[in-house]
This record gives sequence, C-alpha cells and structure tokens, in this order.
Amino acid sequence: CMGARAWTSRVARKVWRIGADEPRKVVHGLKVGLALALVSVFYYTRPLYDGVGGAAMWAIMTVVVVFEYTVGGSVYKCFNRAVATASAGLLALGVHWVAGKTGEFEPYILTGSLFLLAAGATFSRFIPTVKARFDYGVTIFILTYSLVAVSGYRVDELAALAQQRLATIAIGILLCLGVAVVVCPVWAGQELHRLTTRNMERLAKALESCCCCREEEDQLGPIRCVLNSKASEEAQANLARWEPPHGRFGFRHPFAEYAKVGAAMRACACCIDALLATDQQSGLLRDACATVAARAALVLREAKRCVETMTASTRSLEFAVADMNTAVHELQADMRSLATMTSSSSSLLIMDAMPAFTAASLLVEI
Amino acid sequence: CMGARAWTSRVARKVWRIGADEPRKVVHGLKVGLALALVSVFYYTRPLYDGVGGAAMWAIMTVVVVFEYTVGGSVYKCFNRAVATASAGLLALGVHWVAGKTGEFEPYILTGSLFLLAAGATFSRFIPTVKARFDYGVTIFILTYSLVAVSGYRVDELAALAQQRLATIAIGILLCLGVAVVVCPVWAGQELHRLTTRNMERLAKALESCCCCREEEDQLGPIRCVLNSKASEEAQANLARWEPPHGRFGFRHPFAEYAKVGAAMRACACCIDALLATDQQSGLLRDACATVAARAALVLREAKRCVETMTASTRSLEFAVADMNTAVHELQADMRSLATMTSSSSSLLIMDAMPAFTAASLLVEI
Repeated sequence: CMGARAWTSRVARKVWRIGADEPRKVVHGLKVGLALALVSVFYYTRPLYDGVGGAAMWAIMTVVVVFEYTVGGSVYKCFNRAVATASAGLLALGVHWVAGKTGEFEPYILTGSLFLLAAGATFSRFIPTVKARFDYGVTIFILTYSLVAVSGYRVDELAALAQQRLATIAIGILLCLGVAVVVCPVWAGQELHRLTTRNMERLAKALESCCCCREEEDQLGPIRCVLNSKASEEAQANLARWEPPHGRFGFRHPFAEYAKVGAAMRACACCIDALLATDQQSGLLRDACATVAARAALVLREAKRCVETMTASTRSLEFAVADMNTAVHELQADMRSLATMTSSSSSLLIMDAMPAFTAASLLVEI
Repeated sequence: CMGARAWTSRVARKVWRIGADEPRKVVHGLKVGLALALVSVFYYTRPLYDGVGGAAMWAIMTVVVVFEYTVGGSVYKCFNRAVATASAGLLALGVHWVAGKTGEFEPYILTGSLFLLAAGATFSRFIPTVKARFDYGVTIFILTYSLVAVSGYRVDELAALAQQRLATIAIGILLCLGVAVVVCPVWAGQELHRLTTRNMERLAKALESCCCCREEEDQLGPIRCVLNSKASEEAQANLARWEPPHGRFGFRHPFAEYAKVGAAMRACACCIDALLATDQQSGLLRDACATVAARAALVLREAKRCVETMTASTRSLEFAVADMNTAVHELQADMRSLATMTSSSSSLLIMDAMPAFTAASLLVEI
C-alpha cells in the first residue's frame, strides 16, 4: 500500500511538472475538450440535428482525429482529410457506377479495385515527399474509398451518404480550426523559431564553459539536446509549411533555412563535444584557446540575436566574427612560435567557427 | 508537354528505385490490399453479413487504420485499439446510466463529462511513457467515449451498439494480425538489429578510410547516417517491445540495450567526425595513428560480428581490443619521445576506442 502511494505521488509530481513547465499543454487539453463539447451541441440541438442527420458522428470523429497540438498540424490533417475524402468519394462513386452496369460481376470488380487501390496507395506512402506531406491523406483516401465502395453494395442512397459525410466533416473541420486558431494558438513556425534560438544559446553556453571549468559533467546535456533535435526540427518545419501567415511570419517564410541552420548547429555541437572530450590540453595554449572559445560564443550569441529579431546579419555580428578571427590568428601565431607540430585542437576551434559563418550567411536570407 | 513527360519519368524512376531497393515495401502494399479484400468478403457474403449487421464498416475501418509496416506496429495499434474501445465503451455506458437517472440534466452531464475526459486524456499524451506506448490508445479512447456517450442520447440500443462495435473490431484485428504475421512478416526487432549492425559497419569503414585517403568527401555521408539514426532506432525499439517471441528473439529480448549501443555509436561517430575535420596531421605520427584507426575498426567489425550472431563477447573480440590497446600505447610512446605537448588527436583516438569497450560490455548481456 505504501509502495502504491509513493508511486502515485511520484507520478502526480511528474505530471504536475509537465503542466507547470509548459502551461500551453494544459490549455491544449482544454481546447480539445471545448471543441468536442461544441460539436456535441450539434447532436443535442434539434434543428441542427435534423439538418445533418445521424451522420453527426462523423463530425465528432473528425474533431477527435484532426485536432493537433500546433496550428500547422491541425491544418495539415484538415486539408488532407477533406481532399482525400472528396477525391476518394468521387472515385468510388465512379467505379460503383461502372460496376453497376456490368451486373453480377459487381462485387468482384469492387473488391478487385479495392485491392489494387489499397496496395498502390499504401506503397505510395513510402515515397518521401508523400510521406512528409500527405501521409494522413493517403490513409483517409483508402478508408473513404473502401467504405463507400463496399457499403455502396447495400446502402442504395450512395450519393446522399457521401454528401452527408462531406458536410459533417466540413463542420468538424471548421470547428477545429476555429478553436485551434482563436484560443491560444500554438504555431509550429514559432516553436521551430524558439527551438533554433534555444539551441544556439545552449551551444554558446557550452563553448563558454568548455575552456574555463572542465569539471562539471552537465555540459554534455545541452550538447546532446542539440545533437538530437533533428527529428523534432524536421517535423515542425513540415507542419509550419501549412500555416497561414501570422505575426512576423510572412506568407513564404523560408522554413527550409531553419533546417540548414540546424544542420550547421549540429556539426558545431559535434565539434564542441569532441573538444570537451580532449581535456588534457597543456597550459601553454590554454589562454589563447579560451579567448577563441569566448569569441566564438559571442558570435553565436550575436547570431542568435539576429535570428530572434529576424534581421539580416547586422554590423555587430560582423564585428564579433572579426574579433573571433583575430583570436584564432593569435592562437595560430602562438602555436607556430612554440614550434610544435600543428595541434588539432586549434583546427577544431576553427571548425567551430565555420558553422557560425554558415549561420550568418543564411541569416541574410531570413 | 515535354516538361510534364520528363517529370513523370523522373518520378516513375524514383518510385521504381524505392521498390527495387526494398521489395518488402511492395509486399506491404499488397498485404494491405489483401486484408481489405478479405474484410470486404464479410460484407458480400450473406450469412456473415447477417451475423454482424451493418456495423461491418467498423471492421474495414479497423483494418485500414491498424495495419502497419512492422508486426510490432500492428500489434501496438491492435492492442491499443481493443483495450481503449472496451474501456471507453464501458465507461460511457456507466456514465450514461447515471445520467439517465437524473432526467433532464442528461445532456449537460454527458457534455461536461466529455469535456473533462477529453481534456484529461489529451493532456496525458504529453507524459513520455504514455506517449511512447499508448498514444494511439488515448485517441481511440476519446473517440469511442464521445461516440457512445453522445449517440447514446438518440440510439436506444446502446449496449447492442457497443457490443457490435467490439465484435467487428475484433474481426478486423484478427484479420490484420493474421495477414501481418503469415505473409512475409517484417519484424521491428529484426529491423532494429539490422540497423545496429549496419551502423557499426559504417563506422568501421569510416575509421579505416579516415587515416589513409582523406580526399574523398563521401566519408561524411555514413557518419551523418549514424548520427541521425536516433529517432528511427527509438521508434523501432518501442515497437519491438510489442512483438511476440520469434526466431532468435526471445520473450524478453533486451531491446533497451540497443538504445545504449546506439548512443555509444553516436558518440563514436561524433569523434570520427571531428577526426575527419582535423586533416593537417604531421607525417610524424601518421603511421601510428593509422595503426590505431585500423585496429579500432577491427574492434568495431568484431563487435558487429558478435551482435550479428548474438553471442556474448568472444575471445576474438578480446584479442582485437588488446591489439588496439597496444597500438594506442605505441602511439602515446611515440608522442612522448617526440617531446611535444600532448596532441589532442591521440586522445581523440582513445575516445574512439571507449565506445567499442562499452559496446563490448553490453554484448555480454545480449
């Protein structure tokens, strides 16, 4: 009993922390509840119910399935669902009409076409472009086609059924998008933006701490975060493409650039990771190294500020890059004066600088 | 017109290559078609149709939604769908019964409980454990609850409806699992296994080429592959957990170990990445470095062989590790005799060796 209570309290604390860290997640839960409650009103109100008939259940289904955390996700699913339902419905009606002409072969034609279409559509999900943009749509396409084609054999008012389904799905979609956009919207574009700037900040911090205080072990945490952020970055860039223009994000916001900046940052994180691993640098070059690291961190900070305010690379960024370059040259001069073989640690630091350049050049486009 | 034809032929070539690279993807498409055709037979056969009634459409829906590429994915979705439907249906019946006692407040109670449950369930999807294992189940739970609770107000044979739904879903699930397991099954566990060994091979190749021929640029490709494989690795480990024992994969196969090996490999890839970046090593240490790299590659190859055959670390692996250690010591001795400052390149190579040790110790558990 004590064990169960301890487990419960631990879970409760964990859940509370998730909610406290990101209150928008709680709000998202409430939004889904609100959308469902609104759609159920359709069911209870007599005149509305008579309008759409018993198919109101499709509206509920649409709301449950389509509502996503970000606006981009919801738009993506709504668009896919609407287009796939409409096209599959039309196609199924066509095939059904043709099959009806042939008489007794009808079931064979319908099942055969179902088999072929389902196989083709499922295979098409492995094509990368389709996977990224229309994965959900393909599922719905198969679903609608099979429902209309097969049930058409029994239910005779096929066109009415398809039309009803479309109407209720439209209701569900409108409700969903309304709630998603009006009540505390979460934009995938903004999330992507915040993720990028947060990662830049993490890198700068890691660079600053890498040369002065080597003892702490938690430097690796943020670096791992940056290294592992590829999947979520890609997903959000995919969804952000579906969002209507809002705030400072224009109609054709270059979301693909974020992916490039992200790749540069991951390469940078890799270098810093390797730097942290080589912790037996001699005292001779330590000062010069520290200067280079500090300047590189400054460049990253400056780049982050540019991304945050969405301005093309400003003069201060150029100054910071120039500062860092002088520091790198000083380091190289120091090394040459020591007449040692070329240490790879300096080249690593130069490598660190490269992604910053890349990021800076990309900023011009934003 | 010419442009359109060129585009079509390009797309066709791309699609053909996907199919040729991985014929199982084509087979997967055919499997979905087969499952759907089988389920539609239920609809056309008079006695079977009378058995389940018009609700046969739920069986079709289940097949479309539940069929996944890997067996683990299908089992995960089937299990989630069945449990969520049953529990949500029971809960909705209970709430409906209570609400029915209160008379005219019924719609308010139903809508209120719908709002609360949907909000709570949606929020629970943000908890990592729930997200990894029951994400789909939560969606189905909300869906079933809202369908049963809301439609209960109109349809009077609520229990019969719920029972019918369960029966048809069971038919769909059985059909799905049958086709998924019997016809060319794709096991998530095996995929994970192959991904791991392929990544080890990639690392070994990159290490071998890193010291002899620096010119080629395509060394970075495989390294990036290893670095970016985290997401797919995690997804497959999640799904593999749902699979029944099969082949050489026992009941409690330690799929979590793959994640650890994967993390070690990514750290290793990071080091190699940094090594490739530092390409101005002096000729003095080049030979010793090349030896270390070659030995490290041998260790990786040996470790890969162990994972492939699923044996605990054999004597040959130990020999390879010992060989590599001698090489590392020779390199260090060379460096000391040169009386240079400690070069970070050697420490990088030692770092490369560490993940191999980690992998070897993990192998004992497999």
